[in-house]
Amino acid sequence: MRRVDVLLGPPWAADAIRGAHVAVVDVLRATSTIAVALANGAAGVIPVAEPGEAIALGNRLGRDRVLLCGERDSVRIEGFDLDNSPASFTSDAVAGKTLLITTTNGTRALRAVATAASVRTAALVNRGAVVDALTREQNNCDIVVVCAGERNGFALEDAIGAGALVDALLQRIPDAELCDGARAAALLYRTVVARLADAIASADHAQSLAEKGFADDVAYCAGLDVLDVVPTLRGGILATPS
Amino acid sequence: MRRVDVLLGPPWAADAIRGAHVAVVDVLRATSTIAVALANGAAGVIPVAEPGEAIALGNRLGRDRVLLCGERDSVRIEGFDLDNSPASFTSDAVAGKTLLITTTNGTRALRAVATAASVRTAALVNRGAVVDALTREQNNCDIVVVCAGERNGFALEDAIGAGALVDALLQRIPDAELCDGARAAALLYRTVVARLADAIASADHAQSLAEKGFADDVAYCAGLDVLDVVPTLRGGILATPS
Repeated sequence: MRRVDVLLGPPWAADAIRGAHVAVVDVLRATSTIAVALANGAAGVIPVAEPGEAIALGNRLGRDRVLLCGERDSVRIEGFDLDNSPASFTSDAVAGKTLLITTTNGTRALRAVATAASVRTAALVNRGAVVDALTREQNNCDIVVVCAGERNGFALEDAIGAGALVDALLQRIPDAELCDGARAAALLYRTVVARLADAIASADHAQSLAEKGFADDVAYCAGLDVLDVVPTLRGGILATPS
Repeated sequence: MRRVDVLLGPPWAADAIRGAHVAVVDVLRATSTIAVALANGAAGVIPVAEPGEAIALGNRLGRDRVLLCGERDSVRIEGFDLDNSPASFTSDAVAGKTLLITTTNGTRALRAVATAASVRTAALVNRGAVVDALTREQNNCDIVVVCAGERNGFALEDAIGAGALVDALLQRIPDAELCDGARAAALLYRTVVARLADAIASADHAQSLAEKGFADDVAYCAGLDVLDVVPTLRGGILATPS
């Protein structure tokens, strides 16, 4: 029987992640933005922890081949090419480029799942595509959805996003065995699915983004299954599997 | 405006707890059992971390005045008087006694909230009484519900119990400002309130307890507002405020 769990926020249980097929969720906004970037033709996305690391790696790879992307307190880092807004990652901006991205919570989560059997990033916008890929995995490892969350742990939008994944997984693997985190996330998602945009907009971080002028981003990130892209981590690079 | 938050599982954010009015929730079974013990006339309940600590403190206080209570892996500790089942804490057993209790998750949570302005224990069985007490607090500190949870963090039954507290708090303080954890817990509770016993019984730990013969405990702990008792921590002792 296939086990499905959701780790609702940091710090994440290392023993749940080890050997599992992991999907990292940071709905507002890192994993939504990564999906947009790859859908718009970016060659790959390299998550890095700190701005200085992005600059050093960018210089090594060739400054004309990369874009430096990321935020601190939701706004673009000085000297960087792009922020963390999905609206910035147009085809014109990103096609053919390798993106070095540093975000507050998403990057930290991606670093924490190094022992997983496989790592993908998921958001509401590419939920169905990631679920399809997880379902196609041949071996019977656990599926663990890792919510990036906020500093203090829990973020409502990530729990809802994780629940959207669990709900779709259950339709494809009806006898999957849920752990408590997965049960709670699925319950949350089903409770709000008819008013998904409002539920996402009610979250603490969504309110903070709206105050900073990013209400359109919040609305975009609440869209379900609009991108057919599965960012998959290999050798430190998130890219679409060939 | 009064802020209400829920910390959904360990480790708990220390900065959220500091100076707040805290309710610690361990529905299965520590805080349900503590409510039963005080309702049945126990003089007080002293939470301790380890069995050896309970034995040493019991000898110091006088072995005839105390009862040693607690579980490891859900069953009574060898040489102890009582386990952690609410059914064991009858008036005959506990009236007038001081109980030294060591449980896996509940005690750890009570130790983690030492910097709070006030600490109470809550469960579904005494939800309304604890909410009344929190509402009567004169100062305007945050109210923080701390879910004891499981080793790995999240436990569904504690999130539902916390949501029951938030739901009742909102009826008494309609303009309370919820944080994400409180929003999620309240959503969960409202989703399952019409089938509360089933929802509690579906949790991982409830299933484990049922396998060990404690299904009746799980059913009892899913009862809402059946005890009018507010276990309140003062000087390391949980007792009913005089």
